Amino acid sequence: MDIATVNTLPYEDFVNIFGNVVEKCPIVTAAVWSRRPFVSFTDLEAAISEFIDALPESGKEGILRCHPDLAGRDLQSGTLTRESQQEQAGAGMDALSSAETSRMVRLNREYKERFGFPFVICARMSDKAGILRQLSERCRNERAVERAHGIEEVKKICRLRLQGLLLTDAPNKL
Amino acid sequence: MDIATVNTLPYEDFVNIFGNVVEKCPIVTAAVWSRRPFVSFTDLEAAISEFIDALPESGKEGILRCHPDLAGRDLQSGTLTRESQQEQAGAGMDALSSAETSRMVRLNREYKERFGFPFVICARMSDKAGILRQLSERCRNERAVERAHGIEEVKKICRLRLQGLLLTDAPNKL
Repeated sequence: MDIATVNTLPYEDFVNIFGNVVEKCPIVTAAVWSRRPFVSFTDLEAAISEFIDALPESGKEGILRCHPDLAGRDLQSGTLTRESQQEQAGAGMDALSSAETSRMVRLNREYKERFGFPFVICARMSDKAGILRQLSERCRNERAVERAHGIEEVKKICRLRLQGLLLTDAPNKL
Repeated sequence: MDIATVNTLPYEDFVNIFGNVVEKCPIVTAAVWSRRPFVSFTDLEAAISEFIDALPESGKEGILRCHPDLAGRDLQSGTLTRESQQEQAGAGMDALSSAETSRMVRLNREYKERFGFPFVICARMSDKAGILRQLSERCRNERAVERAHGIEEVKKICRLRLQGLLLTDAPNKL
């Protein structure tokens, strides 16, 4: 889909297609529809990023809290969004040993108890070893640092989800 | 559920229970979890209201765009959220004559073309005749007026959904 086509979409189609580029936060996509026309893919991505940056800190934490745990309850029970399922599986989160699962569950719990939001990482830009290392290291950060770090990861996830949707049938038009 | 119990909920349970008090916008509930402890039901409601008011205008439009049409495609296809389904049915939206359905579809379309967001009304505080009258009248408003009006309706819907969840098993504790 090229950006000219994106600009012609009624908000309902726009939200249906792009509503989960920020996990479970269709409000973000629905809000930036007001910013049409977008001159490029990068312009749409920037509008999303600016909307997120303009939220109060509680709103940024709200975005993080809409994310599932990595290798958590939703993965086990099959209730992840389609996008999260693919991303977690791609990083090997659905094929952990029982020792790895236990470690991940323990670290996720520690992280959430410390910060009040979940550990968020762009799984497609990492792998099992990298995710476990980051989770272990980031547990030691300050809350504000980790909130900002999480939001940067949200933006990376968003960029890759957007690319996947926009490049599907017209990669040379962006 | 009393407010003391609400204050003890981990964010995951809080979002699971209250995540749809603003339609398809769990970020709102997830954000206000940061404001605990709440001293009362009214305090929780006020936190949600303040979060919405602090959003940029595009964010308020984003909230409106996460709402389904009344007597629209989602009602016909059974893809409304549970809450919307009950509210629309309660106002008779699932039992319109074919003439009424046609009129509703036409007015919804006019409204969306004019404003770029859907007509939102607290269906539980109205009925079929009232909804059709309001839809017809509000089509003539200015965009900024209608955006503000829609957000006030979102808050009424939120209040009733919250009451329903909180009063289920402990009405005298709030």
